[in-house]
Amino acid sequence: MRRLKVVLSYDGTAYHGFQRQGRGLVTIQDVLYSAIEAATGGPPERFAAAGRTDAGVHALGQVVAFDTAGSIPIERLAAALNANLPEDVSAVSATQVSPDFHPRFDATGKEYAYCLHGFNGGVRHALLARYSLFAPGALHIEAMDEAARCLVGAHDFSAFQDVGRPVKDATRKLSVCRVESFTYDHPPFAGIPAAKVVVRADGFLYHMVRVIAGTLVEVGKGRFAPSRVSEILARRDRKAAGPTLPAHGLCLVKVEYGAAQS
Amino acid sequence: MRRLKVVLSYDGTAYHGFQRQGRGLVTIQDVLYSAIEAATGGPPERFAAAGRTDAGVHALGQVVAFDTAGSIPIERLAAALNANLPEDVSAVSATQVSPDFHPRFDATGKEYAYCLHGFNGGVRHALLARYSLFAPGALHIEAMDEAARCLVGAHDFSAFQDVGRPVKDATRKLSVCRVESFTYDHPPFAGIPAAKVVVRADGFLYHMVRVIAGTLVEVGKGRFAPSRVSEILARRDRKAAGPTLPAHGLCLVKVEYGAAQS
Repeated sequence: MRRLKVVLSYDGTAYHGFQRQGRGLVTIQDVLYSAIEAATGGPPERFAAAGRTDAGVHALGQVVAFDTAGSIPIERLAAALNANLPEDVSAVSATQVSPDFHPRFDATGKEYAYCLHGFNGGVRHALLARYSLFAPGALHIEAMDEAARCLVGAHDFSAFQDVGRPVKDATRKLSVCRVESFTYDHPPFAGIPAAKVVVRADGFLYHMVRVIAGTLVEVGKGRFAPSRVSEILARRDRKAAGPTLPAHGLCLVKVEYGAAQS
Repeated sequence: MRRLKVVLSYDGTAYHGFQRQGRGLVTIQDVLYSAIEAATGGPPERFAAAGRTDAGVHALGQVVAFDTAGSIPIERLAAALNANLPEDVSAVSATQVSPDFHPRFDATGKEYAYCLHGFNGGVRHALLARYSLFAPGALHIEAMDEAARCLVGAHDFSAFQDVGRPVKDATRKLSVCRVESFTYDHPPFAGIPAAKVVVRADGFLYHMVRVIAGTLVEVGKGRFAPSRVSEILARRDRKAAGPTLPAHGLCLVKVEYGAAQS
C-alpha cells in the first residue's frame, strides 16, 4: 500500500463543491474517485483533501492524498488520472508521500485569491465571466489594500465567517492579506484590467475569504473607511462585515507544507 | 442616423461562430442583434463585423459597426449592450464613427493568437480547457518560432487554407508570425506554463491561423524541419501543410485601423 499526494486544478463552475454530497449532486470528489479507480484499479483508501472548496469555487492547487494498492508507476499517475477526468478537472502532479501524510492537518498554510474586474470605468468581460466577479463602479484599490493589511496576524475572525460550519475557536493567523490591481498579460485575456484579493492563512472559516473580499469591496466603494475593518474584527459579529461575494471569483491557489512534505 | 463601432469580447465555446446561420443555430451575431435592439430600440442597420470567427473561436477584440436611429448616449451603449448580452459575450467599448466606416474593409490588420499548453512534461490544465489546446509531448518552441518567421511578408498562402471559403487571390501579408512560451501571471491561471502562436496580417484565409499553428506544431514535434515551412508555402498545396488545430485554442485578439478610425 502506497500513500499518494495529488495536486489538482479545477474549474468549479459545474460542480456542487469538492466534497461528496450524494443526492445526485456531482462534486469534484466524485469525478476524482472514478478517475482514481480507473487509474489504480481500485477505490482510494483514507482519502483526504486539503480544503473543501464550496460549489462554484475553482482550484489551481488543491491537494488530496489517498492510499492505494494499485501498481501504477507514480510518474504516470497524473496523466492516467487526466485521461479519466472530465475536461474541467485535472491532476497537475502526483508524488508518493509518507504513510502518515495528511493533506489538511499537515498543511502549514493555504492561499486563496478572489478576482474582480469591471471597476473604475471598466466593463464586464466575457472571457473572465467564469473566473472573476464583475464589480462595476468606482473602487479605491489602495484603500482596500490598506484595510486588508489590518487583518494580517492572528485574530478571532468570527465576524468574517458565515453560519453553517461552526468551529470552537475562530482564531486564524493570516500571513498575507492584500489587494492589488493588475492587467492580464497573455491571450486570450491579454490587456484586461482586474484586481485580486490575496489571503494566505493557516486555516480558513466558512466563506471567510468571500466575506473578507465583500468587506474590502465596501471599503473600495467608500462605504467603510479602511480603519473600520479593524473595528469589525474586534466586534466578532458577522452582521458588521460586508456581504459574502459569489463563489465564482474565488480560487484556492495553493496549499503549503513544511519542507519534508512539499 | 448614427454609425456606431463596438469592440466585442466573447467566449465562443457555446456558439456556432460569429455569423448568423439560421436553422436554430445560435451565433454571436444573433445574441448581439437582440442586445442592440434592446439597447437602441430597433434592429441595427448596415451591420458588419471585422472578422467572421468560426464556431468555438474566441474574441478579445472583435469589431462590429452598425447604423442606428436610436438615441442612446454613446457613453452608455457598452453598458446597455452588456445588460442585454449573455455572460459569455460582452461589449468592451463603443464609439461613434464616420458614416462610411466599415469594420472589415477599413481594417489595416488583425491579430490572432493560438494558445497551447501541456507540452514538454506539462499536463492538461482544467482552468485552460476552454481557451488553450492541450498539446502533450515534447515541443521545440524555438524551432517553431524560427519556422513561423519564414511566413512573415506577402505570400500566396494557398497551402494554409482549408476548402470551404474560396478566394480569387490567396496572397496575404503577414507583419507578425511568431511563437513564444510564457507563464500565466495572474489568478486563477498563475503559474501555468503555456505558449502562443501570434499572427498579424492584413487579412486571413479560411482556417489560416489554425493551419499555420498545426504546421508549426509539426515543426515543434520534430516531424518537419523549420525550413520545410518555406517549401510548403512555395508548393501552395494544402496537403503539404500540417493539420487544422481545434477552434478553442484560437482567439481574435484585435483589429487595427488607421489613425483616423482607431
